[in-house]
Parts: sequence; structure tokens; C-alpha cells
Amino acid sequence: MAPDSTFETVSTSKAHGGTLGVYRHQSTATGTGMTFSVFLPPQAEAGAKLPVLFYLSGLTCTHANVTDKGEYRRACAEHGIVFVAPDTSPRGEGVADDAEGAYDFGLGAGFYVNATEEPFAAHYRMWDYVTQELPALIEEHFPIDPARMGITGHSMGGHGALTIGLTFPDKFKSLSAFAPIVAPGQVPWGHKALGGYLGQDRAAWRAHDAVALIEDGKRPAGDILVDQGAADGFLAEQLRPDLLEAACKSAGVDLTLRLQDGYDHSYNFISSFMADHIRWHAERL
Amino acid sequence: MAPDSTFETVSTSKAHGGTLGVYRHQSTATGTGMTFSVFLPPQAEAGAKLPVLFYLSGLTCTHANVTDKGEYRRACAEHGIVFVAPDTSPRGEGVADDAEGAYDFGLGAGFYVNATEEPFAAHYRMWDYVTQELPALIEEHFPIDPARMGITGHSMGGHGALTIGLTFPDKFKSLSAFAPIVAPGQVPWGHKALGGYLGQDRAAWRAHDAVALIEDGKRPAGDILVDQGAADGFLAEQLRPDLLEAACKSAGVDLTLRLQDGYDHSYNFISSFMADHIRWHAERL
Repeated sequence: MAPDSTFETVSTSKAHGGTLGVYRHQSTATGTGMTFSVFLPPQAEAGAKLPVLFYLSGLTCTHANVTDKGEYRRACAEHGIVFVAPDTSPRGEGVADDAEGAYDFGLGAGFYVNATEEPFAAHYRMWDYVTQELPALIEEHFPIDPARMGITGHSMGGHGALTIGLTFPDKFKSLSAFAPIVAPGQVPWGHKALGGYLGQDRAAWRAHDAVALIEDGKRPAGDILVDQGAADGFLAEQLRPDLLEAACKSAGVDLTLRLQDGYDHSYNFISSFMADHIRWHAERL
Repeated sequence: MAPDSTFETVSTSKAHGGTLGVYRHQSTATGTGMTFSVFLPPQAEAGAKLPVLFYLSGLTCTHANVTDKGEYRRACAEHGIVFVAPDTSPRGEGVADDAEGAYDFGLGAGFYVNATEEPFAAHYRMWDYVTQELPALIEEHFPIDPARMGITGHSMGGHGALTIGLTFPDKFKSLSAFAPIVAPGQVPWGHKALGGYLGQDRAAWRAHDAVALIEDGKRPAGDILVDQGAADGFLAEQLRPDLLEAACKSAGVDLTLRLQDGYDHSYNFISSFMADHIRWHAERL
């Protein structure tokens, strides 16, 4: 891929001994400007190529939510992990949104697919963005080792992490998720999103459904860590970790599923277990 | 003080093994509704009366900024510290604001004083609120030990922490600050705020100026910890840690002033050193 000459630094700020930066570029995949944050731990100053963890955010989020509230930087500084947080959808002039402006489709809700349905096909190409363009851009501009990339995410972003980790195990060597949507083909959020972006032929949905991917023979690079709040209001209807547990058990995939008593779906939950996930990835990268 | 029957829970969420709550009540001091957050560490469930740290926020902030970005909860859970974050000013119908809506006076900029100037005198009584009403309310509703209270804050809130800690050493037993305004009587932010709230008689300002308080014989309960980012754009004109250093040296006050290389004025700075401050207070409470 040719160097991206549109790459620009929005801001940088020292944090936990490293550098928290916000960056922007014109994406070839989405045809829009895309903003993301990168935390470089202090180990980056020594010139080493470091492992990198991609974090995919949930519905309504931009890069900023986890950047502000995720509490990942101390653990990344401890373990020498670069942390990259992209946006959840294309944005800007000409980017189609949900017809009623709902939170669970369109802007802030790209579901990490390449849309085939109009009017979304033009810009909603988050699958290509996250799996191809962004890793290449990060490798071009930051001291990362492309052989040591991991992926995680929350809710819709947990769905993205699982589907991407299962599809590209040679690229993403470690995989975890916080309260992921594990089977969009079987839940309302997924019906709306996959139907809207990919059309009503459900065969096309299976490539973007972690449980279906496992059923269809896809396997992650290693084991999977999933944390799920037991008091999460979306657990029973939208998230369904039981479906992932059954699929992994049936397929012999090594899943550590932790139901965390009393935790909800918010960043209070995510930030409580973020350090565990950073360490999990560090041990595998 | 009679029990506050207006106290209500806005939200609670499990975090780092404890409970992060947002609460609201009708303040007698300010005559307005006031919102604040409280983090109860897991030790609270055992029924113990815990030490409490009050955190005063800086210009433009509400309780939410530090609650979202402060990264204090892991350290509070580790050390068994209750963390309380109030708002920075009264708000609501009838509350006067800066005539031009500036960020450094009026709403979001109460400067932790009891205003004597109109139209601010009616509601801008953050001194009474933070030193009297809020601690009593916290003691009424949460398992805290009123003999073990500490105070800290950022920027304008660091000013509040220092002036309150110096004025009430029997009440606030431990004292620290992040990038505080140490001498409002000598810097532009302070001239505007103290002039606007207290009038142009500068004698009245000395009770709300940490350097002047030390010069006038006030002493903290113990030593003071101050962290200051060396790359903070407000350092030289508004914050002036050199003035605090000189006053403490002259008065024999034990000040640990740490100039942190490369850090700015943001929550990236605060969150990087928050755990140090929590530990500092825990060791003294």
C-alpha cells in the first residue's frame, strides 16, 4: 500500500509515561476522513517494534469513548503494548444514516462489515478499514510489529473483534472481547444491522456472525477471553454469550467466558477488566 | 445539620469491585440542585467506616470529568478510599453567569468561595458547600469516617483544595493538588474571579489565596503533595508553583512539588499521577 499522505496529527499529550495521540486521515476504504487514537507506551522511545492491540468500540461510540474512559494506558505502559482505537463508522458529508437516526444503525453503528446495500455500500466499509487499511497505516506511522497484533472490542466492537479474529487468525494473534454481540444473525441488533448493510439473504450474514463462523469451521489463532457483566441489560436479548459458549464447546475452541457479578454494559465494566485484557494479550503477543 | 430529604440517587454502576454512584440534592448553601459522584470501594461492603478523599475539579468541569477520566477507582479500591467529586459551581435557573459567558468565571468556575458581590452572592457559595454541607451529607449517606477526610483537586480545584486544607487542617487531614492555582491574587484568572466574586478590596482575597494564607500563618495538617506538568501551557502565567514553593520554604511547610516532564494540563496528566495521590492520602488518613 502506498504511503498515506493525508495522515495528520490532531493532538498529542503525554500520559502514563507514553504518548496519547489522536490522528486523522482520508480513508481509501470508506472514502471519508477517519479519526483514531493511538497510545504509545514509554517502551516506544527505546526504538523497539512493539505489539499492538486494536480496540473496536460499541454502538454510538467514536474513538473518544474508550480513549477517555477505558483506563488502558497504565497497563499498556506496564506491558509495552500499543493501543489503537478507531471510529465505529464512516462520518461526514454524504454518509448515509439510519432513516430515523436510531442509535443502532448507520452513524456510530457500522458493525464492522463492508455494506453491499444502498445507500450504505459507498462508505460503510469498516471491514476493509479495520482489517486492511488501518493496520497498514499504523505500521507505516508507528513502531509496531505487524507479526504481533491482537484485537478486542466492546459490544458491537466485540462482535467485530470476534469475527475479525476468527477470519484472520494469521493476522490477529490474540483475541478477547467485552460483552460482545456473539451471534448477530440471532438477535435484534444484528437482524437490523446485517439486514440493512448486507441485505436479506442470510447466507451473507454468516461471515459476520462469530457463532456462525465457528460453526462453519473458522478458528481463532489461540484461545479467546470474554468478559460479560451479569447485570448487563442487553445480555439476554442482544449479547447471548451462551450461544458463543455452546459453539466453542462444540468446536473445541478454548473460550474463557467470565460472567462478572453485578457489572453492567458501561465503561465502568470495561475499565474494571481492561487491565486483565491488556495482560492477556501481552502474554500472547 | 438536619437530614437532607432531597438526596436522590441518579445512577449507580459497579466499577473495580465497588460502586460508582451519581447523586443529586437540593443544596442549602447554594440554593440550587447540586450533583456529585461518589466511588465506594469494595471495603465499604464489610461495614467499615472508610477514609474519604474530596476531589475539586477545575474550570469548565462538572463532577463528570474526573469521574470519567480520572482513573482513580482502581487505586481507591486497592487502598479502601471513598472518592467524592462535586460540581465546580451552582447551576440552574436564576444562577448568574459571566457576562460574556467566558469559561473562567461564573458557571463551571465558582472558585470555591462564598461570593459577596451581586449578582453572584445569592448562589455562588461553594466554600460553604464544599467545607460544610457536602461533608455532612456524605457522612449522613455513606460509610465514611469524618475523622479521616482528605482533599485534593486540579487547577482551580487545586486552589480550592489548598485554601480549604490550609483553613481547616483539623477537618482535612491530608492535602494534595494537581497543577493548582496557588496564588490567585497574583494571576489573571484569580484577579478576575476573586474580583468578581469578592469585590476589589484585595484584603478579602487573602483568605482564598494559598500563598497568602501561608504568609498569614495558616498551616496544613501535614505535608503537601503537588504535581505539576512541565509542559502545562498555564504554568508560567496562571499556576506559578514557584510562588507556593517559596511560601512553603519561608514558612517551613513540608511541600513535595514534582515538576513532571512533558505533561500538560489535561486529564492525561491527572490520570497519570492519580494513583500516586490516592496512595499519598491513604498513607495519611
